[in-house]
Amino acid sequence: MSLLIRGALILTMGENDQPFSGDILIEKDRIAAVVPRWEGRADEVIDASGMVAMPGLINAHNHTPMTLMRAFCDDLRLMEWLEKKMLPVEERMNEEDIYWGAMLAMAEMIRSGTTAYADMYIHMNHVARAVIDSGMRASLARGLVFLEDDGGKRLEEALSLIEKWTGAGNGRITTMLGPHAPFTCPPEPLTEVIDLARKRGVPIHIHLAETKEEVVRIRERYGQTPTEYLYHLGLFEHNHVLLAHAVHLTRRDIGLLRGMRGGIAHNPVSNLKLGCGIAPVCDLLAQGLTVGLGTDGAGSAATLDMFAEIKAAAWLQKVDRSDPAVVPARQVLRMATVEGAKLLGIDDRVGTLEEGKQADLILIDLQKPHLQPLHAPYALIAYSAAGADVDTVIIDGRVVMRRRELMTIDEEELFRQVEKRASRLVDGI
Amino acid sequence: MSLLIRGALILTMGENDQPFSGDILIEKDRIAAVVPRWEGRADEVIDASGMVAMPGLINAHNHTPMTLMRAFCDDLRLMEWLEKKMLPVEERMNEEDIYWGAMLAMAEMIRSGTTAYADMYIHMNHVARAVIDSGMRASLARGLVFLEDDGGKRLEEALSLIEKWTGAGNGRITTMLGPHAPFTCPPEPLTEVIDLARKRGVPIHIHLAETKEEVVRIRERYGQTPTEYLYHLGLFEHNHVLLAHAVHLTRRDIGLLRGMRGGIAHNPVSNLKLGCGIAPVCDLLAQGLTVGLGTDGAGSAATLDMFAEIKAAAWLQKVDRSDPAVVPARQVLRMATVEGAKLLGIDDRVGTLEEGKQADLILIDLQKPHLQPLHAPYALIAYSAAGADVDTVIIDGRVVMRRRELMTIDEEELFRQVEKRASRLVDGI
Repeated sequence: MSLLIRGALILTMGENDQPFSGDILIEKDRIAAVVPRWEGRADEVIDASGMVAMPGLINAHNHTPMTLMRAFCDDLRLMEWLEKKMLPVEERMNEEDIYWGAMLAMAEMIRSGTTAYADMYIHMNHVARAVIDSGMRASLARGLVFLEDDGGKRLEEALSLIEKWTGAGNGRITTMLGPHAPFTCPPEPLTEVIDLARKRGVPIHIHLAETKEEVVRIRERYGQTPTEYLYHLGLFEHNHVLLAHAVHLTRRDIGLLRGMRGGIAHNPVSNLKLGCGIAPVCDLLAQGLTVGLGTDGAGSAATLDMFAEIKAAAWLQKVDRSDPAVVPARQVLRMATVEGAKLLGIDDRVGTLEEGKQADLILIDLQKPHLQPLHAPYALIAYSAAGADVDTVIIDGRVVMRRRELMTIDEEELFRQVEKRASRLVDGI
Repeated sequence: MSLLIRGALILTMGENDQPFSGDILIEKDRIAAVVPRWEGRADEVIDASGMVAMPGLINAHNHTPMTLMRAFCDDLRLMEWLEKKMLPVEERMNEEDIYWGAMLAMAEMIRSGTTAYADMYIHMNHVARAVIDSGMRASLARGLVFLEDDGGKRLEEALSLIEKWTGAGNGRITTMLGPHAPFTCPPEPLTEVIDLARKRGVPIHIHLAETKEEVVRIRERYGQTPTEYLYHLGLFEHNHVLLAHAVHLTRRDIGLLRGMRGGIAHNPVSNLKLGCGIAPVCDLLAQGLTVGLGTDGAGSAATLDMFAEIKAAAWLQKVDRSDPAVVPARQVLRMATVEGAKLLGIDDRVGTLEEGKQADLILIDLQKPHLQPLHAPYALIAYSAAGADVDTVIIDGRVVMRRRELMTIDEEELFRQVEKRASRLVDGI
């Protein structure tokens, strides 16, 4: 089975590539050619004239079932939001709620051009089901909070997730261990997780320094910054680590991260909306660290549209540095694609359009007033495009959205399930 | 001719109203009823079940023909952007370029739910033609720069625009005088414009304190802040004034603005993208000043999507104040509607959904994954909706977009004209 994308404006997002008009040949699940003109045959042809073809976006930090809490309790201070609203709702969530909440996220991500993402939450087996059913690519971790003794139940679930799902769906699912954050993981259990991850070669997904309150709390408890705390437990010595947020870092903290495997998932919309602060992205990049983009959960960010994160990431650094030249369009688009792939540890397979990689790509329709005229493609996509401009989405060689119609998800049934479950979950909270 | 909007979730944006399900009856150009259920007859019915109905958005600061420079020269420092790129292109613009650039903006604004806006640019007669042809509502001003002696030509054009177009299109066009900014308007000609505006009862549209450089320049020249400079020339004594940007204000400056007629058009996306700074919106609001939202021109902001401004305005204050509770959803939606109407001086006619007002309203389709489930309508629209979610747009009782199809603009011809003109304008620059 071969599929030809004909006549697109191609942004490979490869390090030294320039935009060019051309064809992309997909054979089964892989990219077989990215060329100015494919003269051979193909089983099926998609006419992509007037469209941009680029790698699918990679959302490096998400809690998918939180779509069920979208617009449930905005404009609240963080602890009130978390303790009085989010946690009581999560207590009520059953496995089918998780599946349908995750499926709502899959629908939204596909519709806005995301083809791979990283998740940390509870009941992850049912998130995995939604990933498989929707055709999405994902890196999944069971969130581990060690604030009370659960007899090892959570860690057991985390390990069982890894055993059961790693490599599922033709390799679309990869897994991580997900110790939640410095303030929810005391030294002893966290050290155990770090050792386990190193021994098994499993990456770690963890929150870091999202709020000032966390910095104060960790300082009080351990006399260190959250980054120092993780550093001294040996997290950055051998493990591939996906750090989410990293808003409040000292200059010394950034020095400690230098040379780490993995990198930072920057979540500008969530950080803005919760009033957390502006992550020092320019400083992280200056130290050669890998920075990708994520949305965080829809409970905080309100959408899972990576195009909003692309804009917000560039804007925030420009205003923070009083310099419109920092984090230019092409760089922020690389953060949303190939850099995100590095964070998930799958950049050998996806993140750029090149021969031999898995076919994860999107077509963006430029025939809209807000995407005309066409001067500079990178700037146009980074600063003017939005999720709804994505016309077609291909993951692992499979067309999961065509001309804005989802091929793997029944939206009518989805909305019915979501409405029913969402109103039950928040009732009285 | 009567038109019934049936079964919408209605956000009137009136001061004390709550969202409710109901019907809106439009008779000719006006809203005749906003009620839970309209039992009478209507010539035409639009089924709005599953949709939000709210006032059209009001973009309080724009330079519409700059759509032709969208994505032409991003990520540049401001003076380089302005002097090496924007000004040479503007030099080349002829009247038909202005018309088609403005028309591209009309198409984009209507598609993203904007029904009225304020413009300051050159060749404004041809912007006015685009306003009339598209069905948009607008407040137009000829930009006045007094850096060289033009023998009074610009001011003459400004006055002729006011005479010729005020009230045109069933009152859809209103006009202002547009002295460009403190740094381009020396005291003598600016005083003349202020006096003229007062005598004729014409509002003034002017940029203020967009950049730190402006503050330094005005301090060097006049020993005052830009706000003090305008204050001492008497601008705020009698005139209705639309101040664009107002990023760099001292506490004393804000005190000087207190009680002014008109208010401030906040342009968060442009301010972010050009790295200008964060306007003190919370302080302005605390002083009882009217704050609306604008996009600025597409040459800087990259889009004219007011939903992006809504999000950015709320986010920026939350992060600037480290407090997610400031500028909550309902307030920022009022900034984008009724407060903008006050800035344009047309809040007696538009800005809320109420009987007797002109029928400027939009329908937003909630049947999308990113707009499900429905917990809190204001938060959902403010933080999760985007321009492309607008299904239907009505201006002055006329349906200008229906199910995302523009009724007044031929997009094929528009894109052809824009492509041709845009490439000529930037050739060699």
